[in-house]
Amino acid sequence: MPLSDFFSQICIVLVNPTDPGNIGAAARAMKTMGLKHLFLVRPKVFPHARASIRAGKALDILANATQIHSLGEILTECKLVFGTSTRTRELHWPCLTPHQAAEKAGGISGQKIAILFGCERSGLANQDLQRCHYQIMIPASSEYNSLNLAAAVQIICYEIRMIFLKQQKSGITKTNNLADVTQLEYFFQHLHEVLLSIDFFRPFRSQQIMNRLRRLFFRTELDETEVKILRGILRSIQRKIVSTSV
Amino acid sequence: MPLSDFFSQICIVLVNPTDPGNIGAAARAMKTMGLKHLFLVRPKVFPHARASIRAGKALDILANATQIHSLGEILTECKLVFGTSTRTRELHWPCLTPHQAAEKAGGISGQKIAILFGCERSGLANQDLQRCHYQIMIPASSEYNSLNLAAAVQIICYEIRMIFLKQQKSGITKTNNLADVTQLEYFFQHLHEVLLSIDFFRPFRSQQIMNRLRRLFFRTELDETEVKILRGILRSIQRKIVSTSV
Repeated sequence: MPLSDFFSQICIVLVNPTDPGNIGAAARAMKTMGLKHLFLVRPKVFPHARASIRAGKALDILANATQIHSLGEILTECKLVFGTSTRTRELHWPCLTPHQAAEKAGGISGQKIAILFGCERSGLANQDLQRCHYQIMIPASSEYNSLNLAAAVQIICYEIRMIFLKQQKSGITKTNNLADVTQLEYFFQHLHEVLLSIDFFRPFRSQQIMNRLRRLFFRTELDETEVKILRGILRSIQRKIVSTSV
Repeated sequence: MPLSDFFSQICIVLVNPTDPGNIGAAARAMKTMGLKHLFLVRPKVFPHARASIRAGKALDILANATQIHSLGEILTECKLVFGTSTRTRELHWPCLTPHQAAEKAGGISGQKIAILFGCERSGLANQDLQRCHYQIMIPASSEYNSLNLAAAVQIICYEIRMIFLKQQKSGITKTNNLADVTQLEYFFQHLHEVLLSIDFFRPFRSQQIMNRLRRLFFRTELDETEVKILRGILRSIQRKIVSTSV
């Protein structure tokens, strides 16, 4: 999928923004990262000169922004809905980092995706968050966790851009299914067996080396196909050892 | 290293900022991500009410901000200096993404690190960039690549926070040296030899599989020790095959 198509399917939705300056700054944050579609749910003041000033050269994003009266108007069209937050809630909603959310968004093709941002003072209301598939938690400092609205939009749009540049570079247009915990544990168990059979471990150091390898492969976020390839390699090693020792 | 110590060693340096609102917003961006030390090189107007308003609850960062007359006053104390930019230069400076830069910063312990941001209109001057070890390039859209100054500060501080939360979680306090291109190519060559020797490749598919494995390991950003471990495994496989076939 070309980048432009992907960016077109993402809707940035500001719910009850109070400061028009933040609306403009959010438009600028979006445009610098390649995003286009801004939705405003009951903005307090809009349009406004402060919005235009803070938008810089993203006036087209502001001009094309869609004002709506209720979230439902946009959410019914969306395949995937994220709600951003920097505070923990009593409501325990499935929670992703901005990076994880961008990866999920990267796995959706040809469907609308909405990312909601609450108002400046209090963030998203719980009833709005309940309409989201996932909460995106920006891991802010406990000393001061209230990001400026446009700054939060900037971080999310940045992560989306980074994921798609990465996919474009590696020639992947759709994220494959990440391997689940069980698949990974079978892989590590298999790897451990093979490393034992090739006498790789020095005495007493197997746990240390295995931890290091686990960290390495966790970091990689292996997908299912990659786990299959790696386990295929392990099987080939085992077969070769058996066949040469016969 | 505790997070607080790490954050204390990073200096955010705004060079000739013109809008005091941006200084305040940068202070807020820093504090929400846990950073503390702000340096202002010849700000046009500071202090200013607009800075205080945009700072939100980061007034302590503003109050403790150090005003200096020349970059030299801070750079001589710093072990590592980054300059941020969204535009390509005739000056071909070593260039990192925000994420890569945060990883490099994560490898430095107990030394000051400076991250420079240029003025709103034109960014860092080439002579300032030449004093940096690395350029950090925020991969902005070619249609509009001019991020708001505080938005750029937010992205960089966010990446720094993410790296350190990750390190804290995995118990690593210092990043090891990333493997260089040559080390990686030797590893891939070695891997290819072993995969051939264990008859892993189906005819005509070796290139495809090797590309997939290259992508996987590039993504992991292997460090030197990890490459040594992986090549040690490959050598053990080779030895085992030879010893069992004798």
